[in-house]
Amino acid sequence: MSLPLFLHFQTRHAADIRADGIAIISPSFFKPRTAEMLRTYLREVISVAPTMPVYYYHIPSVTGVDVLGRDVLEGIEELIPSFSGVKFSGSDLMDFGQCVSYSQPHWSCLYGVDEQLLAALALGAHGAVGSTYNYMGSHFNELMAAFERGDLVQARTIQFKMQELISYAKKLGFDLGVNKQLMIELSGLSLGPPRLPVMPCAPSVALSIVQKYHSLFP
Amino acid sequence: MSLPLFLHFQTRHAADIRADGIAIISPSFFKPRTAEMLRTYLREVISVAPTMPVYYYHIPSVTGVDVLGRDVLEGIEELIPSFSGVKFSGSDLMDFGQCVSYSQPHWSCLYGVDEQLLAALALGAHGAVGSTYNYMGSHFNELMAAFERGDLVQARTIQFKMQELISYAKKLGFDLGVNKQLMIELSGLSLGPPRLPVMPCAPSVALSIVQKYHSLFP
Amino acid sequence: MSLPLFLHFQTRHAADIRADGIAIISPSFFKPRTAEMLRTYLREVISVAPTMPVYYYHIPSVTGVDVLGRDVLEGIEELIPSFSGVKFSGSDLMDFGQCVSYSQPHWSCLYGVDEQLLAALALGAHGAVGSTYNYMGSHFNELMAAFERGDLVQARTIQFKMQELISYAKKLGFDLGVNKQLMIELSGLSLGPPRLPVMPCAPSVALSIVQKYHSLFP
Amino acid sequence: MSLPLFLHFQTRHAADIRADGIAIISPSFFKPRTAEMLRTYLREVISVAPTMPVYYYHIPSVTGVDVLGRDVLEGIEELIPSFSGVKFSGSDLMDFGQCVSYSQPHWSCLYGVDEQLLAALALGAHGAVGSTYNYMGSHFNELMAAFERGDLVQARTIQFKMQELISYAKKLGFDLGVNKQLMIELSGLSLGPPRLPVMPCAPSVALSIVQKYHSLFP
Repeated sequence: MSLPLFLHFQTRHAADIRADGIAIISPSFFKPRTAEMLRTYLREVISVAPTMPVYYYHIPSVTGVDVLGRDVLEGIEELIPSFSGVKFSGSDLMDFGQCVSYSQPHWSCLYGVDEQLLAALALGAHGAVGSTYNYMGSHFNELMAAFERGDLVQARTIQFKMQELISYAKKLGFDLGVNKQLMIELSGLSLGPPRLPVMPCAPSVALSIVQKYHSLFP
Repeated sequence: MSLPLFLHFQTRHAADIRADGIAIISPSFFKPRTAEMLRTYLREVISVAPTMPVYYYHIPSVTGVDVLGRDVLEGIEELIPSFSGVKFSGSDLMDFGQCVSYSQPHWSCLYGVDEQLLAALALGAHGAVGSTYNYMGSHFNELMAAFERGDLVQARTIQFKMQELISYAKKLGFDLGVNKQLMIELSGLSLGPPRLPVMPCAPSVALSIVQKYHSLFP
Repeated sequence: MSLPLFLHFQTRHAADIRADGIAIISPSFFKPRTAEMLRTYLREVISVAPTMPVYYYHIPSVTGVDVLGRDVLEGIEELIPSFSGVKFSGSDLMDFGQCVSYSQPHWSCLYGVDEQLLAALALGAHGAVGSTYNYMGSHFNELMAAFERGDLVQARTIQFKMQELISYAKKLGFDLGVNKQLMIELSGLSLGPPRLPVMPCAPSVALSIVQKYHSLFP
Repeated sequence: MSLPLFLHFQTRHAADIRADGIAIISPSFFKPRTAEMLRTYLREVISVAPTMPVYYYHIPSVTGVDVLGRDVLEGIEELIPSFSGVKFSGSDLMDFGQCVSYSQPHWSCLYGVDEQLLAALALGAHGAVGSTYNYMGSHFNELMAAFERGDLVQARTIQFKMQELISYAKKLGFDLGVNKQLMIELSGLSLGPPRLPVMPCAPSVALSIVQKYHSLFP
């Protein structure tokens, strides 16, 4: 039942450099059919660094895996003592709510669909991880602060602007290549070109989205 | 470009009995490929009762129609002067947020996925329409009241219980037949058996869900 | 467990005009979850005309119903004595093959995806029903004749040309509106405009496809 | 635009051991949106061993990539001179037929859905690659021989038996773990347990399928 060796190397490496934790995504070529298959996989990946904090990274639209996040969490703390939570990048908020509800005190349920973060906060999300935060982080911090102080009107205003921007970008082919270009243009984060099959963003596309950004967040 | 006659009869009948409004779902056999096709269809259905308030009923998981709700709303008030809003039964809350954001003052954006109503309230839902409200309405009224007064902890507690109930029912084959039986058992609403292809609920299934309900909402 | 009355009216009408048979599609709003639900529905539709030949029309890409055709056929002859076969409009040819293999001598397994008819013939299809046959019927008759006499090279040549035409049309937005226009242009079958939400075909699109047709079938 | 290094290592290694060729699957985490993105990826993978025969391995149900195989082939011989064909593991036989039709004389269009191989042979498949051939190869050789000599009745009989076996296995949870156990039981090919997340096959499941096999192929 061995895994590819490089998964163990990577996990061991994360422990060696004293990473704060690792997030493990489901395999998607041969897909687990049950929560038990997925839990067993997570335990095996982390077995070489058993005290490393580990998160289950749930992203069904990418993996095509049809297993509820909540079902993966069932009894996982006995199987993986260092289990620390879930990054939930899905739009099924019944499943997310049930993850939050089942969550142990030392776990974190982090939400990953930036376009609807406010919805997840209402359901008790403990935090957020997402790619657009690389250039829109300050606006999302404002959104979260507004939410914390009970100012839903303000939180909603920021979320709606962000939705308008992403919706606009999607019609132009928003992907990781576009996202990396936006990081450069808006945050000065130059992380190199995307890896194939993602292609670099056409300058006209980036320019158009940047203008939209400045019109929404002047 | 005529529609089946009975759609016009039904619409006309709704006007005759002075219904408060009608909700129109997308055709799903030949599916509209664009928002324009769908808008043109809505206008044609309502053409025999042009002052009747009309809602677009967005439920992509059932219709299989891949058109954003927000795109349907684009310019619809010029096409259908009596347009009154959307019943949004989908889990894409970026799309729902954009419907709310684009909504005219006299429209209503009603949310239809009961299991995640709280998320939609955070995004500004103006109301809710759903099948479980036939027997859980009082709990949802409490949820909405808690939300209104800013008590998210209480709202979340109710939503989580409701998620646990529906999640439990889903593993037993939750469908309209089960739902009708729950209406009888929990609210005394005896509306007759479901229509085929939905089958009546097995008594053991109904009993099991009713017990779960009473354990969650004692 | 009553059905909408108009389904019974339509079935009764078909019997009155001495139609050769009727084909029944699965309901798709409330979707059957099991083959048994779907069989029970078919029996109820046909109950007002119990000697009328009846076909199950399997088209999962349109209905979104996730039930195998073969499972619907299980034991159906005892439930519906006038059952006469299946129109199979799906691309799962294991399921189609199993329908053919299970088929009773007086049934017909008709195939409905014109673009891959030759594949279904190889698996034993008893006939074909499809929309493009309204203007390409003579070519498909040649394809079937070539297949019958064992000339797969010729059959394949015709199928490939037809695939090229449909593939070309799909990139231009092939739908029922386009199909109706092609019926007019290529066969002189003027059946009126499509019903909403399908829109009439833009003349430039029809012209372009007609030219492609003539280049492929000079 | 660099790829992960280990892809280049693997390709280089294949060249060093004088492999007959390599098959490249689409990336599926960040999915290519266009055929051009996918072609560019294939070229980059093979760039370290530019004379190695290379096949595009099309398996959309696993990768979730929505790009037609035929579109990937467009102009690929100029981009990748050693391009040698496609392994097509999909059920869209219009797309497969168009791959065959476009195929250059020195390419091979190999079919990978064992349950419907006969359909692909009718459309001109040049060969077959599949996992069940590890224990049912002799029956498929008979099927192909029957097809070659024009005996479709015999070819169909074998294909139907195989469909019945796989259909039976699917209802018991057919996956790679089951498949490996069948290799041991039916061919004596002991290749070790499956890798996670796939779990070893329960003995009762294997036994049941083996019995079915012997009843179908006595």
